[in-house]
Amino acid sequence: MKRLELISEGKSKRIYATDDPRLVIESYKDETTAFNGLKRGNISGKGVINNRISNHLMTMLEKNGIPTHFVEELGERETLVRRVTPIPLRVVVRNITAGSMAKRLGLPEGQKLRRAVVEIDFKDEMLEHPMVNEDYIYAMGWASEEQVKLIKQYSRRINELLCTVMRQAEIEVIDCKLEFGVTVDGTLVLADEISPDTCRLWDASTHEKLGIDRFRRNLGDVEQAYQEVWSRLMGERA
Amino acid sequence: MKRLELISEGKSKRIYATDDPRLVIESYKDETTAFNGLKRGNISGKGVINNRISNHLMTMLEKNGIPTHFVEELGERETLVRRVTPIPLRVVVRNITAGSMAKRLGLPEGQKLRRAVVEIDFKDEMLEHPMVNEDYIYAMGWASEEQVKLIKQYSRRINELLCTVMRQAEIEVIDCKLEFGVTVDGTLVLADEISPDTCRLWDASTHEKLGIDRFRRNLGDVEQAYQEVWSRLMGERA
Repeated sequence: MKRLELISEGKSKRIYATDDPRLVIESYKDETTAFNGLKRGNISGKGVINNRISNHLMTMLEKNGIPTHFVEELGERETLVRRVTPIPLRVVVRNITAGSMAKRLGLPEGQKLRRAVVEIDFKDEMLEHPMVNEDYIYAMGWASEEQVKLIKQYSRRINELLCTVMRQAEIEVIDCKLEFGVTVDGTLVLADEISPDTCRLWDASTHEKLGIDRFRRNLGDVEQAYQEVWSRLMGERA
Repeated sequence: MKRLELISEGKSKRIYATDDPRLVIESYKDETTAFNGLKRGNISGKGVINNRISNHLMTMLEKNGIPTHFVEELGERETLVRRVTPIPLRVVVRNITAGSMAKRLGLPEGQKLRRAVVEIDFKDEMLEHPMVNEDYIYAMGWASEEQVKLIKQYSRRINELLCTVMRQAEIEVIDCKLEFGVTVDGTLVLADEISPDTCRLWDASTHEKLGIDRFRRNLGDVEQAYQEVWSRLMGERA
C-alpha cells in the first residue's frame, strides 16, 4: 500500500492518503500534549509503542465482535486503517474516579464507581471538550439515535474487554477515551487509538500511574511506563 | 396552618415548619443572587410576584397531571407546600440557546434548538452545578432509574405546558430550571418554584429579557420586568 499525500496532522498522529480511497495510513509521532494542548513535549519511542499497543488491542476487540478501523500494521510507526468520517464526540468510559470527572464532581481520585459510567463529550479542544447528553447530540445533529445507541453499547463492551486484558497484565483501567467514525461503506467503527495516551492505566497493586498521567504530572520515567505496558501485555513481566 | 420554626433559608426563600410534619411554609424574599452567588442584590417586590407566579403555574401544572408540592397560598409572600426530600439534581429544559449552554458549546445565543434539550446538573453551588448524565446519577446514587424516567417525562411536559401558557402572554420560554423532591408519602413532585428567577423569559416579539437576566446583566427596570410577567399572565397587557 503506497503512502501518498498528508491529509491531516493531529497531536499524536499524521494521516496519509493511499491509492485506495477507502483506506488511509496512520503514522504515530513521539510528540505529546496534555491539558488541552497547554503542555507539550516528546516521549521518545512513544509512537512505536502506541502503534503496537493500539493494533494489539484493536485486533483483540475485532475478535470479540467490535468493528474497528484497524486493517494492518505496516511498520513500527505506521498502520493501515479504514478511512472514516469522524463522529465529533469523545466517549469516556470511567471505572474509577479520576481527572476532570473527580474535579467537576468534587470527588476524591481512586474511588471505584458502582458501575462504569459512559460520558459523552463534544470533541472540541477550544471548548475543552464539553460534556453533552443525547438530547444535545440530536439537537445539534452530531450523531443519529441509532449511532448513539451503538456507540454506547460498543463503549461498554470495549471497556469490559479492555479491563479483562489489562487485568491479566496486572494493570487497572481507570478510564478510557474512545472515538468513533463512519467508514466509506457506512459502518460505524472504533477509530483513533487505544493506548496509554488515551487510557488512564494504573499498576493494579501499587496504583502507580503507567500512562500519559506520568507526563501530565511530571512523574518521570515516562518512556519506561509506556514500555512497561507493552511488555506486560506481551506477557513479559519486569 | 401555624408557622413554626425556620427549617432552612435559601437564596430566595425561607422554609418554616408547621404543626403537620407533611407540610412546610415557603416565604419568598426580595433578595436575589446571580452567577452562583457572586452577585447579590434586592429586587423590590420580587418575593410577592414570584410567589404569585409560581403558585399560578403550579396550579396550572397540577390541572394538567403534573404532581407538584403546591398546597395553598397563605399570604402575599407565603405558601403552604408539601415537605419533600429534595433530589440533588437541577433539570434545565432548553428551547433556545442561551446562558451557560451557549458558552459551553460555543454557540450564539437565541438559536432555536431542533427539539427541547433536557439537561440534568448535580445541584451543588460550590461546584457550579456540573452537568451529569444518567450513568453518573445511578453510580452516585442521586436518584433511581424510575425517578429519572419520571423526572425526564415530567420535565418535557412541564416545558410544553409552560411554553403554551407563556405564548398566550406573548412571552418566549428560552429555558427553565426545575427541581424535584419526594414527599413524606413517597410521591415524586415538582418542588422549588417556577418564576422569572428560574426561567429565562423573553418578550416574544422584541426579545427583551423579562426575568433574572435583567439583574444579571444590569439591564435596569428589573422590578417592572417581573411585574410585567405577572400582568401578562393575568391577561392585563401593558
